Amino acid sequence: MNRRMVAQTVGRILLSEAGLLILPLIVSVIYKESCVLSFLITAVIALVLGLILLLCFKPANKLIYAKEGFVSVSLAWIVLSLVGCLPFIISGEIPGFIDALFETVSGFTTTGASIVRNVENLSHGILFWRSFTHWVGGMGILVFIMAIIPNMSDRSIHIMRAEMPGPIVGKLVPKAKDTAKILYLLYIGITVLEMAILFFEGMPLFHSVLLSFGTAGTGGFGVLNSSIASYTPAQQYTIAIFMLLFGVNFNLYFLVLIGKLKDAIKSTELWVYLGIVATVITAVTLNLRLSHVYSTLSETFRISFFETSAIITTTGYAVDDFNNWPMFSKGIILILMFFGGCAGSTAGGFKISRLMLLMKVVRRELKVLVHPRSVINIKLEGKTVEETVVRNVCGYFAIYICCFVVIFILIAGNSPDIQTGFSAAASCFNNVGPGFGAIATNYCCYNAFSKLVLTAAMLLGRLEIFPLIVCFSPSTWTRR
Amino acid sequence: MNRRMVAQTVGRILLSEAGLLILPLIVSVIYKESCVLSFLITAVIALVLGLILLLCFKPANKLIYAKEGFVSVSLAWIVLSLVGCLPFIISGEIPGFIDALFETVSGFTTTGASIVRNVENLSHGILFWRSFTHWVGGMGILVFIMAIIPNMSDRSIHIMRAEMPGPIVGKLVPKAKDTAKILYLLYIGITVLEMAILFFEGMPLFHSVLLSFGTAGTGGFGVLNSSIASYTPAQQYTIAIFMLLFGVNFNLYFLVLIGKLKDAIKSTELWVYLGIVATVITAVTLNLRLSHVYSTLSETFRISFFETSAIITTTGYAVDDFNNWPMFSKGIILILMFFGGCAGSTAGGFKISRLMLLMKVVRRELKVLVHPRSVINIKLEGKTVEETVVRNVCGYFAIYICCFVVIFILIAGNSPDIQTGFSAAASCFNNVGPGFGAIATNYCCYNAFSKLVLTAAMLLGRLEIFPLIVCFSPSTWTRR
Repeated sequence: MNRRMVAQTVGRILLSEAGLLILPLIVSVIYKESCVLSFLITAVIALVLGLILLLCFKPANKLIYAKEGFVSVSLAWIVLSLVGCLPFIISGEIPGFIDALFETVSGFTTTGASIVRNVENLSHGILFWRSFTHWVGGMGILVFIMAIIPNMSDRSIHIMRAEMPGPIVGKLVPKAKDTAKILYLLYIGITVLEMAILFFEGMPLFHSVLLSFGTAGTGGFGVLNSSIASYTPAQQYTIAIFMLLFGVNFNLYFLVLIGKLKDAIKSTELWVYLGIVATVITAVTLNLRLSHVYSTLSETFRISFFETSAIITTTGYAVDDFNNWPMFSKGIILILMFFGGCAGSTAGGFKISRLMLLMKVVRRELKVLVHPRSVINIKLEGKTVEETVVRNVCGYFAIYICCFVVIFILIAGNSPDIQTGFSAAASCFNNVGPGFGAIATNYCCYNAFSKLVLTAAMLLGRLEIFPLIVCFSPSTWTRR
Repeated sequence: MNRRMVAQTVGRILLSEAGLLILPLIVSVIYKESCVLSFLITAVIALVLGLILLLCFKPANKLIYAKEGFVSVSLAWIVLSLVGCLPFIISGEIPGFIDALFETVSGFTTTGASIVRNVENLSHGILFWRSFTHWVGGMGILVFIMAIIPNMSDRSIHIMRAEMPGPIVGKLVPKAKDTAKILYLLYIGITVLEMAILFFEGMPLFHSVLLSFGTAGTGGFGVLNSSIASYTPAQQYTIAIFMLLFGVNFNLYFLVLIGKLKDAIKSTELWVYLGIVATVITAVTLNLRLSHVYSTLSETFRISFFETSAIITTTGYAVDDFNNWPMFSKGIILILMFFGGCAGSTAGGFKISRLMLLMKVVRRELKVLVHPRSVINIKLEGKTVEETVVRNVCGYFAIYICCFVVIFILIAGNSPDIQTGFSAAASCFNNVGPGFGAIATNYCCYNAFSKLVLTAAMLLGRLEIFPLIVCFSPSTWTRR
């Protein structure tokens, strides 16, 4: 393995993090808060570590393969989180290391699971940093790095493949670097649009900026203890719609941008995604209405629309505690956690396109059982899917379920009951955030070991398992 | 489709059922019980219906293919259950049709989930019929039919393939009929051995016969409300060991029988199965011991040994209510429900060999990710597994999880809480029996709709999904 190139990537990540820390630093200066020092110290640490890596590990050759890509991505997220948790610790606002790490990984992986009991006690700077990690994590730090730092070889598509969620990475333009730039501009554009609309609707600027960060990354960290419940219905609808927008494959926005609206609308995944959303909203609205949970139909619809969008996009914002819902709706929400948004979006979870592919695998098996000699190709978005991709998705599904089970068992002994344990594992692994039972608002009920397991779960979910396994296989580091 | 051949098979099944009903009839005569009439009426109904099918649908040609096999198996289990539930209704001991159907399907699918609140109120004849359905279902009615009724063409391997659990059906001897006979003799032999040992250990004859039926079929219907708790430790160990024995691939017993002990011991699946059992027993014993659930280590070990065997083999007998266990052990038991025994055993669940294959698929994907050009074959038991089998297992896994989710959602609205709903779906679908929360001993908390869903779940689990889908696809019945 080309370890020096890995060190270079991680070094660049650290330098970028030093730069990113300037923003919360400015915020804390504006609000005249004492946490300004914690950002300064962390930025200096990131800068020094980054420079050491960059200067001491000059690569002899710049060739990198899939393996280097996986290792770079995994280490990047881990190092970013290890350094990113320092402001929480230094400022004393989240004094424990494991708690701070949990919160930071939850931020960068865009999970939004929190160990903070009272969010409103946090300073503006810390709140800003918390939500900003969502935004940075959302589109993937690596895409970010490629977009702002030039002189990476075109091999960096390997890093993107490890990073980008979903089975198929579309190369929008020939050079990976340019693809990243376009995706990133789109990401900034839609985020700023949301900020503007929320601000225009009367939300305080600070709130609209932070909530837009959380929406864009499909994260879910809020500013108030009541999450989104105390905002106006219009603001709630705005956030719900933007959550859905950030759950859509970004390639489609690019198509719209270059005038190919027709091609964008042809996406089967988009329609399946919208179909699932519409079905779930209808079912939940009916169930809540028939159980008289809320007083009016419009309130019932708004809340079920918001929660459905929040869960399928794995954002995890809330306008009410779904623990009080009837069991049918709770069951649907629990299952929806695993779905996730479209491939190529900032959402976590298993991804709609993978689900579609699996259903086609099942259909093929049924046909083959009855007509053993038939040869059937699987098609997605009108194109035949290569058998290697089909095999990969099947393998991913197996390891996905396997990881979930292991996470569930590891935290089971520390879970107050099965629904809490199950939903904690599901919520962290799929980067959703909130869950059922004791974890409705925060994860304080878990001990240090369980928090570490759930931290690992968030990373596994966000990086889609394989890169982390490759990174931590001894064979990656021993063999040439 | 050759509908007439399907009618012939179902007709034979009904005649066999008429014959089988003579046994509980004799039992109720011995105990001078009023339910004798209900068995007589049911036997006559089965006989008449069977004769009608056999005589009115004489097949023009005897050719059957996979499709006919799947349809025959599905219809056979459904018809057998529809007729088999009549004694419960006629005798008035389970008056409701849906309850009686649930109980009968639970019997034939060897699930052991019950809607009877007080088992000890049932008459001996009905108790015998209940447990006897386990025994009949255990090895598969179709194998049974092939073993006792001659003149089936060798095409009947299609029926066996649809029936036999697990990915690979070993043909022990060239003719399917002979294979079935050998398996069935083994099945009878081991059952009688268990009866003898239990009787020798001081258990009343009636109990030892019925509990052996339940063990052999990996069913789980008991004779007492306390299931197995009130028997002696020696009897409990005997049942636990026989449960484990019935979770082993029957082909291995055949190998032992013809003196190929060495080949039998080489089975990787056997060792993985025993390894899982040993690991779970150790983990649960430690957890229960450290939580001081039981007073002595020997009691702790016995109970964890028994419950582990009962769950992994999907039998579902109990010596204590695991609802009172600490969360870690409960979590393990919940996950273990999905494992199931070895392929080719009477156990339900996903089956160990499928799990092994899936893990190998994952390992291959990891290798291919790092070395994209490598071509790797998957081996099981020292032999290369055909890619069609690999694909089939992946497809089965996808539909298996999908079915589970649908069952969970359908009964969610009627479940008192998530753990009850989740474990009810898991327990019925994997043919285990008991579960967590409100279904610790019986399923009375569910309404008629949920009971029908769970009845379908038991059938889906027992027939491994595909045959039922083929049977109920409109295309099976419309196209030539």
